[in-house]
Amino acid sequence: MSQKTQEPVVNKLTELATQDAKWITLKRIDYTDQTGKDRTWEVATRKTRGKAGVDAPPSTLVVIQYRPPLDAYTVEWPAGLIDADETAEEAAVREFKEETGYDCKLVSMSPVQAADPGMSDANMKMAMVEVQLGESDELPEQRLDDGEHIQRVVIPLAEFYDRLVEYSKKDRFIVAAKLFHFAHGMRFAQTQKYM
Amino acid sequence: MSQKTQEPVVNKLTELATQDAKWITLKRIDYTDQTGKDRTWEVATRKTRGKAGVDAPPSTLVVIQYRPPLDAYTVEWPAGLIDADETAEEAAVREFKEETGYDCKLVSMSPVQAADPGMSDANMKMAMVEVQLGESDELPEQRLDDGEHIQRVVIPLAEFYDRLVEYSKKDRFIVAAKLFHFAHGMRFAQTQKYM
Repeated sequence: MSQKTQEPVVNKLTELATQDAKWITLKRIDYTDQTGKDRTWEVATRKTRGKAGVDAPPSTLVVIQYRPPLDAYTVEWPAGLIDADETAEEAAVREFKEETGYDCKLVSMSPVQAADPGMSDANMKMAMVEVQLGESDELPEQRLDDGEHIQRVVIPLAEFYDRLVEYSKKDRFIVAAKLFHFAHGMRFAQTQKYM
Repeated sequence: MSQKTQEPVVNKLTELATQDAKWITLKRIDYTDQTGKDRTWEVATRKTRGKAGVDAPPSTLVVIQYRPPLDAYTVEWPAGLIDADETAEEAAVREFKEETGYDCKLVSMSPVQAADPGMSDANMKMAMVEVQLGESDELPEQRLDDGEHIQRVVIPLAEFYDRLVEYSKKDRFIVAAKLFHFAHGMRFAQTQKYM
């Protein structure tokens, strides 16, 4: 496609009616996406914040996308909301296909976890999946919603932690905490002397 | 102290004024804490959700507390907001002392991570700290805010993942995603055949 693209720009932060909230508030972000289309996003934010291929090595697949709440590109594993008529397992396989284009095989599903317990009641499960990358350099077609622009990056597991630290140093890039904690746990188990 | 204690109970979920939000909303939770005192908590929530000692082995220290947004006891690492006049490093040591009673030594600090990128703009850093547990069974005094009731649990690293899975099976218990992902990363590095 020959769509015109540009860097996403946050144009305005608008306060929603939240007169009763003391610590957190809702904001609507009006932004222009990579194709020049004006869009909106709703975000919950705290009111208080201080300064402050074959033969390829075993790898993981991360997705990078512009996230309006952060005005930054996030490095994450594929994720999404569970539809009303599907199980967590079905949602994991569906979202992986939509965001990466690949069919995957479910290996395991975690218990329910609290996404960010001090601030929200959001919860999630983590699915471990296996995927066989194709032999060609051509990537399978994604099934993205209108407005989604998702880049796929294959990272060898041996470089996982270091690559996430590198991404964190890039301007306008931020790594999702769950992804970072998993990679950090791997590194910790491999390097610390006690175990 | 001979304070009367009881199981926390959620009494009411009250909708805040959020007429402009389509996907997320704010709610205030009125609840009664372990001492019988009525309290409130603000939470951002999605509108859409489907069905769906010495000689001790090397260990980690987790905190368990009632979290009104989830109406559950969460298993987490100590955490807190960074005050306006302190660094992330100072906040990590201060919060650890307040919630556990122990002095700790900062080992490393992670880059900034996105707490829950699809829903909020909250971000965080993870501090690795070392702490020497005392020889006696008596735990040091915590410096808790009014209304905080935090239980400390020492978990040997070799049992970390399995213990979190056990907590997840308990009624009204949920493990924080960041903690679970770290433990899962450790387990993955130790058990998978590729590395």
